[in-house]
Amino acid sequence: MKLPKLGVLISGSGSNLQVIIDQCASVELPAEVVVVISSRNDAYGLKRANRHGIRAFDLSRNLFSSKSNYNLTILRILQECKVDLVIMAGYMRLLGAEVLDAYVNRIMNLHPAMLPSFPGAHGIRDALEYGAKWTGVTVHFADADYDTGPIILQEPVEILSDDTEDTLAERIHEVEHRLLPQAIKLYCEGKLRVVGRRVIIKD
Amino acid sequence: MKLPKLGVLISGSGSNLQVIIDQCASVELPAEVVVVISSRNDAYGLKRANRHGIRAFDLSRNLFSSKSNYNLTILRILQECKVDLVIMAGYMRLLGAEVLDAYVNRIMNLHPAMLPSFPGAHGIRDALEYGAKWTGVTVHFADADYDTGPIILQEPVEILSDDTEDTLAERIHEVEHRLLPQAIKLYCEGKLRVVGRRVIIKD
Repeated sequence: MKLPKLGVLISGSGSNLQVIIDQCASVELPAEVVVVISSRNDAYGLKRANRHGIRAFDLSRNLFSSKSNYNLTILRILQECKVDLVIMAGYMRLLGAEVLDAYVNRIMNLHPAMLPSFPGAHGIRDALEYGAKWTGVTVHFADADYDTGPIILQEPVEILSDDTEDTLAERIHEVEHRLLPQAIKLYCEGKLRVVGRRVIIKD
Repeated sequence: MKLPKLGVLISGSGSNLQVIIDQCASVELPAEVVVVISSRNDAYGLKRANRHGIRAFDLSRNLFSSKSNYNLTILRILQECKVDLVIMAGYMRLLGAEVLDAYVNRIMNLHPAMLPSFPGAHGIRDALEYGAKWTGVTVHFADADYDTGPIILQEPVEILSDDTEDTLAERIHEVEHRLLPQAIKLYCEGKLRVVGRRVIIKD
């Protein structure tokens, strides 16, 4: 059986990358991570990739003369590695049309809030500062804007009265580590269908 | 013991008004509804008020020459009835500064979504059309904008794959009927404190 090939985009520690690698190594997730691309050269996730013998690329944006060249390079790497599904797991940049158009409804993004609430780079802090009583985690297909694409899975997370950004982040990350592999698995099993803005999940 | 006096603003059927009236009549809610004000003369909630011997006012906006006169009339009725806490229960208009300034952090609004997601007049439909997997209910203090004030209580509601606006609304209303009285009770027991954007709930 040919496993779907995953390309994972990161900018930081790559804790979600690690969960995906581990679940692919077990029987839980019928897929394999074939490439990791980081937008920062100091991302710990690059080390994780190396440790598991996965091709890893430091693609810091400042190494490129233009956004277009940057995105075309990402696209070429993904195609070179025959990636079926792209996972943005804590990837802190927007992908350009070069990549999006080639991977329509095949790029998943993970967001630490219950979208459309608290989009952007500080979803956890923004929910706390807003005084929300609940926030959550969203896995969605990426589109040209930040955090607006069709939603695949969501799960609510309660904000406790004594939460700090750290304690809330910890509970949100727990949910992320469950929800993202679940969404990838649904994709790999052919159970996701996008109809307009809705993602239909087949039983 | 002097019970806190509630003034309830409605625009429609008043099902949340009925829940509040019923809970005030039992021992569950230590408060009394002293006046109901409707922004529509055909609101069924006016009949509910009459049936329970509660003063009821049809304050259709088009009966007034200006927004300011409209809001000043609401304010005078609330003050005349010595209202302590104002409840917007399906009230589809914005309150003016005349009322808001006199009742700072003493006006509760009920919204059928997990704010700040899906504000405005069609919270349930908007969540469905967005393709969200979860929505919810929010009780918050009203401010000068729609649906932006400090949040008192929230509760998530899952959107099911076969939900229509009606089936989702039914489950959301169930949560509303629980959450709004709970928020009123916390207020009446002196357990709510507003600090910046956050509402602290005392144990």
